[in-house]
Amino acid sequence: MSNDQFVRNIASREEEYSRWYTDVVNKAQLAEWSLVHGCMVIKPYGYALWENMQRLLDQRFKATGHQNAYFPLLIPESLLAREAEHVEGFAPEVAWVTHGGKEELEERLAIRPTSEAIIGETYSKWVQSWRDLPILINQWCNVMRWEKVTRLFLRTTEFLWQEGHTVHRTSDEAMEETRRMLGVYQDFVENELAMPVIPGRKTDNERFAGAVQTFSIEAMMGDGKALQAGTSHFFGQNFSRAFNIRFQDVDQQMEYGWTTSWGFSTRMIGALIMVHGDESGLIFPPNVAPRQAVIVPIWRGGDEQTQVDEAARQLQRQLSERFRVHYDGRDEFKPGYKFSEWEMRGVPLRIELGPRDLASGQVTLVRRDTREKRPAPLEGLADVVSELLRTIQDDLLARARDFMRDNTVTVTGSSLGELEEAIGQRKFVWADWCGQASCELAIKARTAATIRNIPFEREERPGLCVNCGQPSDGPVIFARSY
Amino acid sequence: MSNDQFVRNIASREEEYSRWYTDVVNKAQLAEWSLVHGCMVIKPYGYALWENMQRLLDQRFKATGHQNAYFPLLIPESLLAREAEHVEGFAPEVAWVTHGGKEELEERLAIRPTSEAIIGETYSKWVQSWRDLPILINQWCNVMRWEKVTRLFLRTTEFLWQEGHTVHRTSDEAMEETRRMLGVYQDFVENELAMPVIPGRKTDNERFAGAVQTFSIEAMMGDGKALQAGTSHFFGQNFSRAFNIRFQDVDQQMEYGWTTSWGFSTRMIGALIMVHGDESGLIFPPNVAPRQAVIVPIWRGGDEQTQVDEAARQLQRQLSERFRVHYDGRDEFKPGYKFSEWEMRGVPLRIELGPRDLASGQVTLVRRDTREKRPAPLEGLADVVSELLRTIQDDLLARARDFMRDNTVTVTGSSLGELEEAIGQRKFVWADWCGQASCELAIKARTAATIRNIPFEREERPGLCVNCGQPSDGPVIFARSY
Repeated sequence: MSNDQFVRNIASREEEYSRWYTDVVNKAQLAEWSLVHGCMVIKPYGYALWENMQRLLDQRFKATGHQNAYFPLLIPESLLAREAEHVEGFAPEVAWVTHGGKEELEERLAIRPTSEAIIGETYSKWVQSWRDLPILINQWCNVMRWEKVTRLFLRTTEFLWQEGHTVHRTSDEAMEETRRMLGVYQDFVENELAMPVIPGRKTDNERFAGAVQTFSIEAMMGDGKALQAGTSHFFGQNFSRAFNIRFQDVDQQMEYGWTTSWGFSTRMIGALIMVHGDESGLIFPPNVAPRQAVIVPIWRGGDEQTQVDEAARQLQRQLSERFRVHYDGRDEFKPGYKFSEWEMRGVPLRIELGPRDLASGQVTLVRRDTREKRPAPLEGLADVVSELLRTIQDDLLARARDFMRDNTVTVTGSSLGELEEAIGQRKFVWADWCGQASCELAIKARTAATIRNIPFEREERPGLCVNCGQPSDGPVIFARSY
Repeated sequence: MSNDQFVRNIASREEEYSRWYTDVVNKAQLAEWSLVHGCMVIKPYGYALWENMQRLLDQRFKATGHQNAYFPLLIPESLLAREAEHVEGFAPEVAWVTHGGKEELEERLAIRPTSEAIIGETYSKWVQSWRDLPILINQWCNVMRWEKVTRLFLRTTEFLWQEGHTVHRTSDEAMEETRRMLGVYQDFVENELAMPVIPGRKTDNERFAGAVQTFSIEAMMGDGKALQAGTSHFFGQNFSRAFNIRFQDVDQQMEYGWTTSWGFSTRMIGALIMVHGDESGLIFPPNVAPRQAVIVPIWRGGDEQTQVDEAARQLQRQLSERFRVHYDGRDEFKPGYKFSEWEMRGVPLRIELGPRDLASGQVTLVRRDTREKRPAPLEGLADVVSELLRTIQDDLLARARDFMRDNTVTVTGSSLGELEEAIGQRKFVWADWCGQASCELAIKARTAATIRNIPFEREERPGLCVNCGQPSDGPVIFARSY
């Protein structure tokens, strides 16, 4: 298979974005479908990405005072039903366990679609006094939602995620936590995944089932559609009333706790692919790339091969002290094929080492994002690689920012036609909204776009709703979404 | 609550080992039951232990060339049934999913009790050529076995574990892997958990369902009973035939792969508790302790309190660069109460800091295992702590080794009465066995002891079976077990 053939096996990103996505996920060996409806196998290369993401998020959770714990996979139906909106939102997509061994269970058990119910029930036992608060706990686990239409990473019946669940003494503290964790997600997504996002508040239509307020960060994919890249929910006292999370306050009065939850899932691997990829395949930001650099040796056999192979192995050992570096010493493939394969698989930096390089004590560095090629001396190479990886990380974020800016437009006043046209051109659209659910739904029916969120950073000024012309107090973000 | 009361709430380890275990798990806040049958909540303190164990095991898996991946939670019934012994062994304890959302499924899905079936099916697609081998993959996940009788950590319907699954070109390579991973478990359990173990081969009666050979490491609990502390299975070609894992070999012939699996679970937290605890509660080995040291300030209020508090916080920050150190600055409890609480919760080292210590630039160090107390200068304290933690780690292993040696006896020849007596005294017993399953079962019926394994390191010499008097080629280990 020549390298042309390798690349020819992927659909064009420009022309068939959706097929390109599927092709790349498969070809790059990130994940594949199992024979169970909607359940994927996350392959080692995809899982390594998730491990890097987990590590960087987990550090941030711990630095903000959270501890990890583990709660049961199964939730009794009656418990899930305690919070009315919650069960209404999730029951239709629950997988139900009805038998344990040979016996039928007295009550059906839901495989957790999310864990508010089982955790709320547990917290009701833990929380007695104001001294027990705040409770700041996170859980890394699998969850299940029985989706009909599925796509690898983006919509799977089982997925991996983390879910933070906290209880606070006051409404203010809980709201502060909700916003803090959205900030943690924004910091992580922008600085590690190199994806710019818009933080804001969801409309009532788009709230999490049972939440008083849901906040999200919204990212723009390569096709101009939005993807919700992390959410944080303020529950007020809804769940503490449903699950009886009460405490004796400083003044001896019994009070209900104020709770929050926030989550981030393997769905984001899909986003990472869609934001940074190009016609040749994936591009991973160095901070989370499973392999930050690949060393490809160049030889024509014989002594030359032995020397280059040895030098390349030594270089790999040396660079591995600071980076995730792979050495591709396979003999059955030509360098050109390897170049294409690792480009496809998104390795941010290629290090070529041939006999002439070796003779002059250097290597050739090739950036995945820009294809820029440059020689670099073997002496002190680690520092050069470090600097270059940082530059690639920064440039990917800058490029994504530019793309988002270039594909965001503003529509002023009551001009639904303009909004529709812009959405048709796959833009993010700033437009005014009066705050009524009916207008939001009417716009969705006509354009297939939803209000992604009401950005924290928006111009607060009087305007006219793009649908009904009633007064609005500022623009919101409309887009089609995944 | 005085500290006497704190300790009085635990049953005596000497007199009521089983109640002591339950009391300690609860009091130390490691885990508790949820309202779902047999499913526990692993609380932050218990989960931190698991995270430390995970990290130390995961490093070892990666150092031996394994990668992590993730496979589906659910396994179709027909797939589980492909390997006859396997389904017979596991089906009776499977939790079954029968509905997805509002629809009944065409086929029941098992929540994985173990993943050989779903992984075998996946590997059949991945393995085509000898070049694809070996496949060396591990998965960290939850599994479920619908047990009737449950105990926290030791036997729960849901538990967390890792399961390695590998495919090899030859039988020898697969056997080498099976033994290598048992060695990894032994190294981990002895050097990180400070538990001596006996590695060996399981008898046919005790093999994993579907395995050709099962190897185990067996540890002795504080009551003299055995606990299987990690298993590694050699499947021969059983699973590759059942799941059609075939490859074209170097000589172009199609061959079935040789597979293995190996697992280690949260059950081991139960073992850790039972091996090292004492009348005052838990004792955690420093290498995995959630908190390696706790700083307890001593003050009588006023300026003194401010100064000690400040110095203790500074010390905590400083030591935290190298250790997991907790500062217990709670004002509502007296030092004595805190001492008891952290002893109960197994923190290996206590650091006391009072006004007199502060004045003379020192602290008081108290070992959890020996209660030995000694002053140490603040200057250079980190090195002293490091040394002391290493000593505690070594001493815990030595103490457990002594205990195992002191509670292991040898019974020679055909003397079932002697075996029964020794088992009644809660010993590990070396005794001869002829190799017949019928003798093994007869002994079990009479003594409630099973053959834990046929140790790799045993005397190979002619003898007489302890039950039937027929020839034996060496002794095996009998014990009652968890």
